[in-house]
Amino acid sequence: MSSGKILVAQGGGPTAVINQSLAGIVLEARRFRDVRLVYGARHGVRGIVDEDFVDLTRETSHNLEAVAATPGAALGSTRDKPDLAYCQEIFKVLRAHGIEHFFYIGGNDSADTVRIVSEQAAAAGYPLRAVHVPKTIDNDLVGNDHTPGFPSAARFVAQSFAGANLDNAALPGVYIGVVMGRHAGFLTAASALGKKFPDDGPHLIYVPERPFVIERFLADVKSTYERLGRCVVAVSEGVHDGSGTPILAQLAKSAEHDAHGNVQLSGTGALADLLCEEIKGKLGIKRVRGDTFGYLQRSFIGCVSDVDQREAREVGEKAVQFAFWGDCDGSVAIRRTGFYSADFVLQRLQDVAGRTRTMEDEFIAPSGTDVTDAFRLYLRPLLGSGMPDAFRLRMAPVAKAAGGGCD
Amino acid sequence: MSSGKILVAQGGGPTAVINQSLAGIVLEARRFRDVRLVYGARHGVRGIVDEDFVDLTRETSHNLEAVAATPGAALGSTRDKPDLAYCQEIFKVLRAHGIEHFFYIGGNDSADTVRIVSEQAAAAGYPLRAVHVPKTIDNDLVGNDHTPGFPSAARFVAQSFAGANLDNAALPGVYIGVVMGRHAGFLTAASALGKKFPDDGPHLIYVPERPFVIERFLADVKSTYERLGRCVVAVSEGVHDGSGTPILAQLAKSAEHDAHGNVQLSGTGALADLLCEEIKGKLGIKRVRGDTFGYLQRSFIGCVSDVDQREAREVGEKAVQFAFWGDCDGSVAIRRTGFYSADFVLQRLQDVAGRTRTMEDEFIAPSGTDVTDAFRLYLRPLLGSGMPDAFRLRMAPVAKAAGGGCD
Repeated sequence: MSSGKILVAQGGGPTAVINQSLAGIVLEARRFRDVRLVYGARHGVRGIVDEDFVDLTRETSHNLEAVAATPGAALGSTRDKPDLAYCQEIFKVLRAHGIEHFFYIGGNDSADTVRIVSEQAAAAGYPLRAVHVPKTIDNDLVGNDHTPGFPSAARFVAQSFAGANLDNAALPGVYIGVVMGRHAGFLTAASALGKKFPDDGPHLIYVPERPFVIERFLADVKSTYERLGRCVVAVSEGVHDGSGTPILAQLAKSAEHDAHGNVQLSGTGALADLLCEEIKGKLGIKRVRGDTFGYLQRSFIGCVSDVDQREAREVGEKAVQFAFWGDCDGSVAIRRTGFYSADFVLQRLQDVAGRTRTMEDEFIAPSGTDVTDAFRLYLRPLLGSGMPDAFRLRMAPVAKAAGGGCD
Repeated sequence: MSSGKILVAQGGGPTAVINQSLAGIVLEARRFRDVRLVYGARHGVRGIVDEDFVDLTRETSHNLEAVAATPGAALGSTRDKPDLAYCQEIFKVLRAHGIEHFFYIGGNDSADTVRIVSEQAAAAGYPLRAVHVPKTIDNDLVGNDHTPGFPSAARFVAQSFAGANLDNAALPGVYIGVVMGRHAGFLTAASALGKKFPDDGPHLIYVPERPFVIERFLADVKSTYERLGRCVVAVSEGVHDGSGTPILAQLAKSAEHDAHGNVQLSGTGALADLLCEEIKGKLGIKRVRGDTFGYLQRSFIGCVSDVDQREAREVGEKAVQFAFWGDCDGSVAIRRTGFYSADFVLQRLQDVAGRTRTMEDEFIAPSGTDVTDAFRLYLRPLLGSGMPDAFRLRMAPVAKAAGGGCD
């Protein structure tokens, strides 16, 4: 007989739909007669070791629905990446509270945490069912067609570039937009979905899957600018040279490192500024502007894909079903079953934990600065309904007065 | 008898709704039997002196409506600020084409251009009616309750901070968002409309109307961070010290100047990065992130206020009515007539041209780092319908297991 106590927590960077997964878990769990109490840990694994729990059983369904539609991580998140000792602490607290079901919503680091805790419980003979629920705007979880959070962030990036392209067409020059993504270029590649007409930007797209050579970058910008009189560029924050050194790290005087030993790439406009300086200095182009999309792309409150919302809700619901009806721990994954429909499976934790998916070769054009139609077909349905569209005047020319006039 | 030829052009920074004004002028003009041809100049006054005209009479109404709903300046824009000789060129071209009605959509520089051209025509005894149509996300035109373009940009800023606040609450630290606005803080102040709960950010708002003292800024951040464990800050790109020197200029090695002699403030992340470094270095806070909203805030394709769309359309329509039914040149202005409704008047060009409105004292809290309720009442109806809302879990606490447990 189960203790009837389950625990849910959220880890890593918040997304526009991570609260959908939270609501999916809580509401679905409360439909199981075995479930007596649904706890939430505040600020991820940190809240578990601190025993900072809230009783989600006391939330109204109505408020849970409202929270589900709110971006950010409603329980709070953490950047802690637990090691073995940390996971032992987690397990100790779960056991002390008699929690027998643990759901952790997060990326591949969170999957790794669930894997270790699951192993702890098995070794101790404690009846814990631990399920990882996928979430990341980077879209870098293996075994998933895509991950909840990515479609909404991609929608933001596509709409941003659709607008930046219009702005750049009105006041021509070079525009660089720097997009999140340390190792995976999916989100940067989403900028291509902002294009409508053949001469629309982004004209150049740089993803971390291809080495970034500054001389080639300058040549690409120059040739586009000479051809169109303007150039819109999408660059991933994680672009690096052939040796794997981030372009940003090459210039950063005092690069900040996080708990995972990574250089801080987000929350600074340095990469965009550097690239703009290179273009001004070496190509002599005067109007060069750079924006770093930063936290807006994962937190903006008004830009959510309805497909993403639905799926984020379902991975939460399915996690509960797998936990109560299945017989093993795992990680919920999204599989594509039609154009467009999706279904959900439970992957083994070790197949996801700590691993990183990057863009498949078939999604990157041979030029290395564009996406393929395969990528457009892959991404378009995920962006959801109601994508805004851009229209142009047809621009019927008028003869000059000196030339005799047109009338 | 009029020549039946009118000309319309767009100047300055594009907005989300400047094409509404364009459509308003073209569609309204075509309802006047005196109007035979509607020309558009490409890239503002630059397109006039270059005689780079398109025949907007050939546009379908259907496409004009689609273009109206598209952000950016569909005719193209320019940063040229014409002097007397430039305006003489403009007038020469208007006369050569027999254009007798000139509509220029733009900010206070554009109003000044219309003023000079109007004076040229009067001095030459040429029958020109010239009308300036207001547009600027800075909201800095005198004699206007607000300006078309500002409400949509304000909506973007409010939604950005609503989301940034949620993100910051999930992963606490200091977050700085740098917002456009060289002299007027309206757009930065709009960040306050992203707040819902009393402890929501932005906790500190810095507008150019108040001198920015770095020591006081650091003290403000420190005290907020100590009180809430986090701090969200909105800073105008134009903040300056007591002597009027931009904070950014104090640190910029090679500041770029535009044709108006102004330092380039947008299209660089330098100010946000500088302020973040100050906080990390002097307050010892570890997680400090800065975003520069940059061009996203004026070009994003999915964030438009319906009130703004409607009014931008109407200032265009009214410009045509004033031109054909009135007897003097001028600048269309928005006046508030209810909570909420607006009406339109024609101001004298010299009352708007080249002048800059800044935030009224009644809109800025005595602390200098917040807005007043008067500002909230002023701005809220302009943001339009369908503003997304943020909800929270109610967070019923659970007793620690070591403390005896709650059940």
